[in-house]
Amino acid sequence: MPAFDPASLRYDAAGLIPVIAQDQADGTVLMLAWMNAAAVEQTLATGRMIYWSRSRAAFWEKGATSGNRQSLVSLRLDCDRDCLLALVRQTGPACHTGRRSCFFTELREDGEAEITQPPAPPTA
Amino acid sequence: MPAFDPASLRYDAAGLIPVIAQDQADGTVLMLAWMNAAAVEQTLATGRMIYWSRSRAAFWEKGATSGNRQSLVSLRLDCDRDCLLALVRQTGPACHTGRRSCFFTELREDGEAEITQPPAPPTA
Repeated sequence: MPAFDPASLRYDAAGLIPVIAQDQADGTVLMLAWMNAAAVEQTLATGRMIYWSRSRAAFWEKGATSGNRQSLVSLRLDCDRDCLLALVRQTGPACHTGRRSCFFTELREDGEAEITQPPAPPTA
Repeated sequence: MPAFDPASLRYDAAGLIPVIAQDQADGTVLMLAWMNAAAVEQTLATGRMIYWSRSRAAFWEKGATSGNRQSLVSLRLDCDRDCLLALVRQTGPACHTGRRSCFFTELREDGEAEITQPPAPPTA
């Protein structure tokens, strides 16, 4: 089959596509982040999740600083070609709060509830 | 707790927030779509997934035409308040192609592969 061309995806006005990261072991949705075409290409080439940080306007290799890396198991495209789903092997927590998933707050009409807690700090 | 305020979410320049729909029964990621603040409010109030269609610039109650409805089980917010994860009960397929999930194409450096097929047409 013809080589995959990252330019064939549909990016937004900023040149980005949303990427859902899902734990391949148990299906937990860990986070949503963004990639540009170069990040898609580097992720496929390296097998490591390399996003585009919108706040820092720079490539963001997940876990390069924290050690909480994501290795790619399967990268999937939706029927509109404007969203990606990455099945990943997650080392450590995905969320910067120390929780496994970034989606730890449940919305209800009567308010917000945290459904998972950050890990307790180590005791002395 | 104080009532949830849909205006407290972080929307993009078009006033939209991405919403991941995940099957609550087995964790399959079904689709990604968008909501504005009014759609978030109506989804929470009705328990039915009501998106904002970017192509039609109109509310889009999932399944209102096709019958392939999504009822809301749990709506979750990520740590940046700029993405939602909806656990849903999906009636029928989520994808307009007849497949259960919109993410049926796997990307590899050497090309694209369809990993699920649409249902066969009924035989006479």
